[in-house]
Amino acid sequence: MARNGEKTHKAIMDAAEELIMAQGYSATAIDQIIARAGITKGTFFYHFPTKVDLAHELAERYARRDTRQLAGKMEAAEQATPDPALQLLLFLEQFIDIAEQWTTPYPGCLFASFCYEAGLFEDRTTEVMRDSMLVWRTRIADKLRAAAARSEPRLPVDADSLADAVTVVFEGAFIVSRTLDDARIVAQQLRHLQNYLRLLFGLEAAAIERAA
Amino acid sequence: MARNGEKTHKAIMDAAEELIMAQGYSATAIDQIIARAGITKGTFFYHFPTKVDLAHELAERYARRDTRQLAGKMEAAEQATPDPALQLLLFLEQFIDIAEQWTTPYPGCLFASFCYEAGLFEDRTTEVMRDSMLVWRTRIADKLRAAAARSEPRLPVDADSLADAVTVVFEGAFIVSRTLDDARIVAQQLRHLQNYLRLLFGLEAAAIERAA
Repeated sequence: MARNGEKTHKAIMDAAEELIMAQGYSATAIDQIIARAGITKGTFFYHFPTKVDLAHELAERYARRDTRQLAGKMEAAEQATPDPALQLLLFLEQFIDIAEQWTTPYPGCLFASFCYEAGLFEDRTTEVMRDSMLVWRTRIADKLRAAAARSEPRLPVDADSLADAVTVVFEGAFIVSRTLDDARIVAQQLRHLQNYLRLLFGLEAAAIERAA
Repeated sequence: MARNGEKTHKAIMDAAEELIMAQGYSATAIDQIIARAGITKGTFFYHFPTKVDLAHELAERYARRDTRQLAGKMEAAEQATPDPALQLLLFLEQFIDIAEQWTTPYPGCLFASFCYEAGLFEDRTTEVMRDSMLVWRTRIADKLRAAAARSEPRLPVDADSLADAVTVVFEGAFIVSRTLDDARIVAQQLRHLQNYLRLLFGLEAAAIERAA
C-alpha cells in the first residue's frame, strides 16, 4: 500500500476503535466511521471489504500492541533485577505508574468489548483475542515458576491461573472504573495484585523501591 | 398488572437478557426478542414503550438479584462465624462452590455488557449499575474495617478499594473465562482473592473448613 493509503487505513482504524470503545461494535455504523475519518464510502470499502474484516484487523492491531506492552515492560523489569518475583512486582509497578496519571477512566479493552458482542465476529477474530491472552499467561507463568523455584510461595498456587490474574485485574478494573466513573481504580487494583504477590513471595515494599 | 401480564413481562425480559448476553444490546433487535419470547410486536410495546425502557428494567432486575446474592451469602457467612475476616472468606467460598460446578463459561455480567455500550443508555440506567456496585463496596468494606480493627492486616490496605476487588475479580474473570472458553477461571480467580485475604489477615485454610 502506498504511504497515503497506509495513513488512510490507520485513520479508519483509529476512528473505528474510538467509536467502538464508546458505544460498542454493533452500534458503530460504517457511516459514523466514514464521517469521523473524513473519507468516502468508496475509500472505506477499498480498505475493508466488510465490517467484520475491520473488526479482525482491529483485534490484530490491539493484540500486537498488547504483546509489545508485555514484552517491553517485562524486559525493563529483567534489566532492573535478576530476581523473578521482584521482576513481576516491577512489571506491575510500570502499569501502576501509568494508571496513576489517568484523570478520566480508561476507555477499556477492545477484547472485553468484543467479548460481550461475541456472536458478531468470525472465529479467526476470537482466536486472535484468545492467543493474545495466552501469550500473557505463558510469559507471566514462566516468571512465576522461576520465582517459586527460588523461594517457595507462602500458599500453594497454580502458576497459570495466577498469571491470568493480571489480565483479570485489568479487565475487571476497566469495567468498575468506567461504571463508577473513577479513574483511580485500575492503579488501586493493580496494587492489590502486587500486594498479593508480595505476600506470596515474602517481598518488602523497600525491595521494589531499591530495584526500580 | 394481571398475573398473565406479569408472566409475559418476565418472558420478554428473560429473552432479551439472554440475547444481550450473547451478542450485546445494540445487536439485539426487538424482532429477535419478540420471536424468542413468542409474542407480538403490540404486546412488546405494551410492556416496554422503548428499547431503552427495557434496558433500564433489565438493569434494575439485575441489580436486585445482585444485591440479594450479596445479602444472602453475607448473612450465611455471619451465621457461621463471628470473625469478620473469616466471614469474608466464607462469603467468597460460597461463590467458589457455585463456580466450580460450571461446565461452560458463565455468560457474564449484564453491567459489563452495558458498560461497553455505555453511549446507548439513559443516565438513570447508568446510576442503577453504579449504585449496585457501591452497595457491594459498602457492605464488604464495612466487614474489612471490622476485620482490620480485630487484627491488623499484614500490609496497609484501603478497605474501599479492597472491597472493589471482589467486583473486579468477578468482572475480569467472566471476560477471561469467555475469551479462553474455560469454565474454571472464575472459581480459580476467586480463590486467588481469597488467598490474598488469608495472607493479609493471617488465616489458615483449616479455619475456613472448620467454619464452613
